[in-house]
Amino acid sequence: MKKFDIAKSKRLRSTPYTSRIENQGVTAYSVYNHMLLPAAFGSIKDSYNHLKEHVQVWDVAGERQVEISGKDSAKLVQLMTCRDLSKSKVGRCYYCPIIDDKAGLINDPVILKLGEERWWISIADSDVILFAKGLAIGKKLDVNIFEPNVDILAVQGPKSFKLMEKIFGTKITEMKFFGFDYFEYAGAKHLIARSGWSKQGGYEIYVQNTKSGLSLYDKLFEVGKEFDVKPGCPNLIERIESALLSYGNDMDNDDNPFECGLDKYVNLDSEVNFLGKEKLKEVRKKGITRKLMGVIIEAKDINVSKSISLTNDENSKIGELRSGIYSPHFKKVIGIAMLDKPYCEVSQKIKISINDVVFEGKVCDLPFI
Amino acid sequence: MKKFDIAKSKRLRSTPYTSRIENQGVTAYSVYNHMLLPAAFGSIKDSYNHLKEHVQVWDVAGERQVEISGKDSAKLVQLMTCRDLSKSKVGRCYYCPIIDDKAGLINDPVILKLGEERWWISIADSDVILFAKGLAIGKKLDVNIFEPNVDILAVQGPKSFKLMEKIFGTKITEMKFFGFDYFEYAGAKHLIARSGWSKQGGYEIYVQNTKSGLSLYDKLFEVGKEFDVKPGCPNLIERIESALLSYGNDMDNDDNPFECGLDKYVNLDSEVNFLGKEKLKEVRKKGITRKLMGVIIEAKDINVSKSISLTNDENSKIGELRSGIYSPHFKKVIGIAMLDKPYCEVSQKIKISINDVVFEGKVCDLPFI
Repeated sequence: MKKFDIAKSKRLRSTPYTSRIENQGVTAYSVYNHMLLPAAFGSIKDSYNHLKEHVQVWDVAGERQVEISGKDSAKLVQLMTCRDLSKSKVGRCYYCPIIDDKAGLINDPVILKLGEERWWISIADSDVILFAKGLAIGKKLDVNIFEPNVDILAVQGPKSFKLMEKIFGTKITEMKFFGFDYFEYAGAKHLIARSGWSKQGGYEIYVQNTKSGLSLYDKLFEVGKEFDVKPGCPNLIERIESALLSYGNDMDNDDNPFECGLDKYVNLDSEVNFLGKEKLKEVRKKGITRKLMGVIIEAKDINVSKSISLTNDENSKIGELRSGIYSPHFKKVIGIAMLDKPYCEVSQKIKISINDVVFEGKVCDLPFI
Repeated sequence: MKKFDIAKSKRLRSTPYTSRIENQGVTAYSVYNHMLLPAAFGSIKDSYNHLKEHVQVWDVAGERQVEISGKDSAKLVQLMTCRDLSKSKVGRCYYCPIIDDKAGLINDPVILKLGEERWWISIADSDVILFAKGLAIGKKLDVNIFEPNVDILAVQGPKSFKLMEKIFGTKITEMKFFGFDYFEYAGAKHLIARSGWSKQGGYEIYVQNTKSGLSLYDKLFEVGKEFDVKPGCPNLIERIESALLSYGNDMDNDDNPFECGLDKYVNLDSEVNFLGKEKLKEVRKKGITRKLMGVIIEAKDINVSKSISLTNDENSKIGELRSGIYSPHFKKVIGIAMLDKPYCEVSQKIKISINDVVFEGKVCDLPFI
């Protein structure tokens, strides 16, 4: 596959860590929320192997925050998600599909409840702030909405716990998954959550004090030497094996949460009021017509830069591949595909044309591992 | 400056023309509205010289459309912009700042009035569709909002008129600036506007029928041979010389239209109702505290990947450079900067540090040419 340079500009914002990761050998960027997101430090396979064994520090400042505070903040946040947040607790993170009035997905952020009237929506790649502003203006809600100056550092991998303990003490190892708390470093308080976009364990540090954050960045690499720390980024192999869905890749505004297998985050029988509730009740009643599933393909390489049709033995289109990569674990290409309902059966055979060569494969459940 | 690959994925959508421009030698991409936007075909200077003399075809599918139709469509469109559209005409394009209730810029699209109850907002790089949906839901407006399948081809440069005449006949040369009309090609009707993101003249073809559009793409290169047609893209040198502002680079949500010199698109004395009107009246009364101006710098090269501080002789910060490039015409670096009001005077001296070397420069009016 041909390679192309990314044309940098202020519009594709750099992060406070950009100069550091460029000195550390970043080789490719994606763009996420109008910001540079590192996509590779050389081989993605090597980085995958390293992530599963050791610990990595990721510049994921592109995961921007939408801060919503004020008297009506809980009402607005609930309006945007089909997950019931009425019993949500301060100090916890919640994975929440955000949907519009037609139940089409707009984003799938993690929402942090900072206080009864203060929330951070830690967004995937779409301008949720504009949706929130539009709703708040239209409904005359008493809220304050803005993008705070938060640049997340993720510390991911099995050795992340030991590394973070060395810096922040044992208290940080006692934090439960999707909990968050505040920790001091270099004169600043950092919100740290036990979360991150891998299934290898770890933390996300919501850096608000840039100076302290940069010092912490360097400290992580200094202290991390004994744990073989390396710079990294969300890893395409690992995230597909783990079925961490990517908004814009695996799902978008034309999909509803049921089609994306997000059923457990859809609380239709609750009392809470959210957009698309009636529409989702209809969908539940009628049943979905397609669904995100895994596929395993008998191929050694793939580049998915747009959706690729999947066909059955009769050469009829039965779905589309939306993400895919060669998995060293399975020694095959694995991917995430939207499949028509009749074909959402494990072991259903599929065919796919990659660079004009037809490969065979089969449907499987998500996650792969 | 180091170069980095762009990591392609479905989330950074390819366009129908991507495979063609890759065969034609595109070397760099930007990302615009979650889509690949070509940023260079080799030397930007060579492309600049060519654009000013001949004709180029640009894949600007990243200029996405937000279609708003229905009984309340005019009301919603007007609500989002400070430009008075009450006398707008079907068949015309309107450059319109879109602002929020605090008068902060959200986008600066060209709005096409397709019918009394049907509009296209041809957007710069932010998800205006989410703002429109939020407002429509909140205000219970009777509208239909979606992103139609439109992939714009721009034909730009002084010879664009002759090239387009050869394909579409003399009628197309009679179109006025910012007018649009429909033209047949290969069995499909294409909306073509006399517009484009350069000051060298030309057209934008709003391709809805992809098959016909691809055939037209090839035809433009076939017929264009005699006019020395080349593939191209928005040119950083040309657009800065012409002061075509770029949302996300030169201005963003922290700026209001007056600060960006967009006064003639702010109609505060009209009867129309739009967001931020009271706020803008306040701004007009108090006066602005900073403004976008041109700067000419005694340097031979610059890369602006984030804003760069500008200082005065006393080393106090007096503004920031937001875009900049070496101009072959001026044989100096030129740029667009937000300057504190006391320093918005033509010939005001400025200093700027580029790669740790301090350069001198001065303030000037926009546009440069």
